[in-house]
Amino acid sequence: MYEIVRDAVEERNFKKVKEIFSTMNEADIADLIQGFHDNREAEAKDISLLFRLLPKDTAAEAFAYMDSDLKELLINSFTNTELQEIIDDLFIDDTVDLIEEMPANVVKRILAAADPESRRQINMILKYPEDSAGSIMTTEYIYMKADTTVKETLEKIRSLGWVKETVYTIYVTSQDRQLVGVLSILDLLTSDDDELVGDIMDPNVITVETHEDQEIVANKFLKYDFIALPVVDNENRIVGIVTFDDAMDVAEEEVTEDFAHMAAVEPSEESYFKTSVFAHARNRIVWLLVLMLSSTISSVIIGHYEAAFATVPLLVASIPTLTGTGGNCGSQTSTMVIRGMSLGEIELKDFFKVVFKEFRISLIVAVILGAVNFGRICIQYRSDPEVLKLALCVSLAIVAAVVMSKLIGCILPMAAKAVKIDPALMAAPFISTIVDASTTLVFFNIALIVFDIKL
Amino acid sequence: MYEIVRDAVEERNFKKVKEIFSTMNEADIADLIQGFHDNREAEAKDISLLFRLLPKDTAAEAFAYMDSDLKELLINSFTNTELQEIIDDLFIDDTVDLIEEMPANVVKRILAAADPESRRQINMILKYPEDSAGSIMTTEYIYMKADTTVKETLEKIRSLGWVKETVYTIYVTSQDRQLVGVLSILDLLTSDDDELVGDIMDPNVITVETHEDQEIVANKFLKYDFIALPVVDNENRIVGIVTFDDAMDVAEEEVTEDFAHMAAVEPSEESYFKTSVFAHARNRIVWLLVLMLSSTISSVIIGHYEAAFATVPLLVASIPTLTGTGGNCGSQTSTMVIRGMSLGEIELKDFFKVVFKEFRISLIVAVILGAVNFGRICIQYRSDPEVLKLALCVSLAIVAAVVMSKLIGCILPMAAKAVKIDPALMAAPFISTIVDASTTLVFFNIALIVFDIKL
Repeated sequence: MYEIVRDAVEERNFKKVKEIFSTMNEADIADLIQGFHDNREAEAKDISLLFRLLPKDTAAEAFAYMDSDLKELLINSFTNTELQEIIDDLFIDDTVDLIEEMPANVVKRILAAADPESRRQINMILKYPEDSAGSIMTTEYIYMKADTTVKETLEKIRSLGWVKETVYTIYVTSQDRQLVGVLSILDLLTSDDDELVGDIMDPNVITVETHEDQEIVANKFLKYDFIALPVVDNENRIVGIVTFDDAMDVAEEEVTEDFAHMAAVEPSEESYFKTSVFAHARNRIVWLLVLMLSSTISSVIIGHYEAAFATVPLLVASIPTLTGTGGNCGSQTSTMVIRGMSLGEIELKDFFKVVFKEFRISLIVAVILGAVNFGRICIQYRSDPEVLKLALCVSLAIVAAVVMSKLIGCILPMAAKAVKIDPALMAAPFISTIVDASTTLVFFNIALIVFDIKL
Repeated sequence: MYEIVRDAVEERNFKKVKEIFSTMNEADIADLIQGFHDNREAEAKDISLLFRLLPKDTAAEAFAYMDSDLKELLINSFTNTELQEIIDDLFIDDTVDLIEEMPANVVKRILAAADPESRRQINMILKYPEDSAGSIMTTEYIYMKADTTVKETLEKIRSLGWVKETVYTIYVTSQDRQLVGVLSILDLLTSDDDELVGDIMDPNVITVETHEDQEIVANKFLKYDFIALPVVDNENRIVGIVTFDDAMDVAEEEVTEDFAHMAAVEPSEESYFKTSVFAHARNRIVWLLVLMLSSTISSVIIGHYEAAFATVPLLVASIPTLTGTGGNCGSQTSTMVIRGMSLGEIELKDFFKVVFKEFRISLIVAVILGAVNFGRICIQYRSDPEVLKLALCVSLAIVAAVVMSKLIGCILPMAAKAVKIDPALMAAPFISTIVDASTTLVFFNIALIVFDIKL
C-alpha cells in the first residue's frame, strides 16, 4: 500500500491517492503519512497536501493517531480556519494530548481555535495531576437526569452524531449532578419508550476518582471489563469518563516504563527509533554511572581480602559464579514482586507473607544450587588437593547468596513502594550491585574460616 | 464489605448476604467468595450456599470471574441441572476457558451440560492452536446479510437479550458468509428503518485471521481502538470475534510472561500467592542451574589468567565493576529491543538499523564510563605506583565491555525472534552470563599487554 501511494504521489496522481485513502482505516492512514515523513520521502508541503486529500470526517481521527512531530508540521501548515475545523472534530481528550505535546506558540493557536466551552473543558483536564484519572479522561459522555424517558434519551443520542464508543453507556445523574446510575444503549433499545431511565438503570456504579492513579484505573478496566468508567469528583459528581482504549494505552505506557526502569533506563516518551542516539545515551548513562561507582564497594571488599586469594587463587575463579547466581536469584524475586504489585496481586500489607514465602523458596533453591555446585567444583578441580575445602567454601557461599539475594529482592521493591519510589527501580541492576558486594563479603569470610587464613 | 458478609454468614443471616450481593458488581462478588475460599474462612458447602444466593442473571457472570480452584469446587457441588443453567448463561469463550482449566472428569460433565450447538462451537474454538486468535475468540456476535433492513437488524438485537459489548458492532456478510462490512449500533440508530445495512455499512473492515498470534491481535486493539475485531478464516468468512476485554487480558498475560522470561523464571499460570512454594522453586531452579553452570566458562577464563592477578592482585578488585557494567549495558539494550519487538515498533527487517543505532549509543556511553572510571581508579588507588596502568587497563576493558554488551544485547533477542524463540529469554540473566565471560577475557588480555605479563 505504502509503495502504491508513494508512486501515486510522485506521479502527482492525487485522485488515486484519494481513492486509496477512502478504503483505509484512519490509524493506517496516519501510519502511512507518518511513514512518508519519517523516511523523508515527502516534503512538508506534500505532506500537508496529502492530509488535505482526506475526507473531513476522516481527517481529525487520522490526525489524532499521528506522532507529535507530524502533528506540529501539519498545524504549522494549517490556516486558522483549517485548524479550527480539526480542533472542532477532535475529541477533548485528544486535544488535551495534543496540547501537552506541542510547543507554547502552537498551544496558543490551538486554544484560540477551540470554542469557549471546549477551552473550559480542556483547562479543567489540564489542571489534574499528570498520570491521574482526571488527566486521561474525556468530557464527551452522555448524562441524563433520572426522570428522562427512554425516548428522550435515544433522541439525544441520535442528535449527537458522535461515532465513538463513549455513547454506548449512559450515565444517570440526580438534580445536583451526582452520579446515581448507569445504563447501556442496549437497555434503552429493549425498554419501552416512555419508561424513565431512573427506573431501568443499574444503581451499582463502579467509578474512579479524579485524583486516582492511572495505573489503578487501568487495573479496574482489567478487572471489570467495562468500555468506559465514569470519573467523579469528591462529591460523587460525574466530571468525565475514561474509555477502554485510553486505559489500554495507559497500561501499555506503564508497562513500558516498568521495563525501562527495571533495566535501569530512564523511560523515553517516544518509540525506540524516534528517540535519537544522544537521547538514548542520556537515558542510559546516569544509572550506569551510579551503578558503576557503587560497584566500588565490591572492589574495596575484594581488595581487603587480597590475602585470601593470594593464598588460594582459585577463590577468584568462583566470583562470577557467586555474583551471577546471586544477581539472578535477586532479579527473579524482584521481578515477580514488582509485577505482582503492578497488577495489584501483591500489596504492602502482604510484606511478611511475601518475605516468608521467598525465604522458603530460597531454601529449596539454595540447597539444590549448593549441592550441584559442590559436584561441579569437585569435578572441575579434581586434581587440586584442596578441592573439597574449595567446594565447601563456594557452596556455602552460594547458599548464603541465594537466601540473601531473594530476601533483598523482595524487601527492596516493597520498601520502595512504601516510600513512594517506583518499585521497578529496585530491579536486577540495582539489586545485583548490592548482592555483588554482600556475596563477596560473605564468600571471603567463609573462605577465611575454611582455609584458616589470617588477614 | 468482606467483614460484613463474613459476619452475616457466621450468623447464618443469608437474607442480609443476599441484599449485599444485590448491590455489588459481579467481579467484586467473585473476589469476595474467592476470598472466603482462599482464606479458608468458609467450608465448601457454605461457599456453594453463598453462590446459590446470587440472582440467576448474576451467577454466571460472577462464576466466570472466579479462579479455577473455586470454579471446580462449585461445579462439583452443582447438580446437573444447575450446571446446565450456568453453562447456558456463560459466554462461549468463558466456557472454553473453563474447559481448558478443568480436569477431565469435570470437562466431561461440562460438555454434557452444553447444548449441541454450543458444543459444536466449543469444539471448533478448542481446535485452534493455543495463543492464536481463534483460541481466544467468542462465537457470540451478530452478523446480518447485506440486504437486511435497519429495522430487522434492530429487532434481531432486541430479541437476543445479551447484555455484552459484543452486540455494539454488527458484521455484514455476503450470501456465502464472507465478511463484507461492519456497522455500529449507532449507525442503526441514526438511520431510517427501511435502509439496508449493506448501504450504510463501512466496507473497510480490519480483521484478524484465526491462526494469527494473540500478541498481534492485542497490538491491533492498541492500534485501532476497536471494541471488537472480527476473526476470519482463510476465505474471509467470519467465524468469531475477539472483544477488547479479552485482548486486554491477553496483553497482560503476554507482558507477565515477558517479565518472567526476562528474569529467567518459567511463567506461572497462577498469581504469585496462588503459586505454591514448590512451584515457585521449580519455575526458578532450571534457569538458575543453567546459568550457574554456564558461569563455569568465566571461572575457567579467570583460572587461565591466574598469573596475571598473581602479579597485579588489584586486577581482581575490578572484576565486579567490569562484569556489572557490562551486564547492565547489555540488559538495557536487550530490554529496549525486546519491548520494542513486543509492541511491534522493532521488526526483524530493522536488524542493521538497530545494531548501528546501538553501536553509536554504546560509543557515547563507553567513552563517558571509561573516562569516569579512569578518574575513579586514579583517586581510589592513588598510592599505588602502577595506578595509571591499572586505570588504563580497566578503562579500556570498560569501553570494550560496553560496546560488546550493547551489541550482544540487541543481536541475541533479534536472533532469537528470527528462529522463533521468545526474545524475552535473551534478557539480563542470559546476556550477563555471556558478557561476564567475554568481558573477563578481554580484560585479562588487555592487562597482559599493559602490564607486560607473560602467562
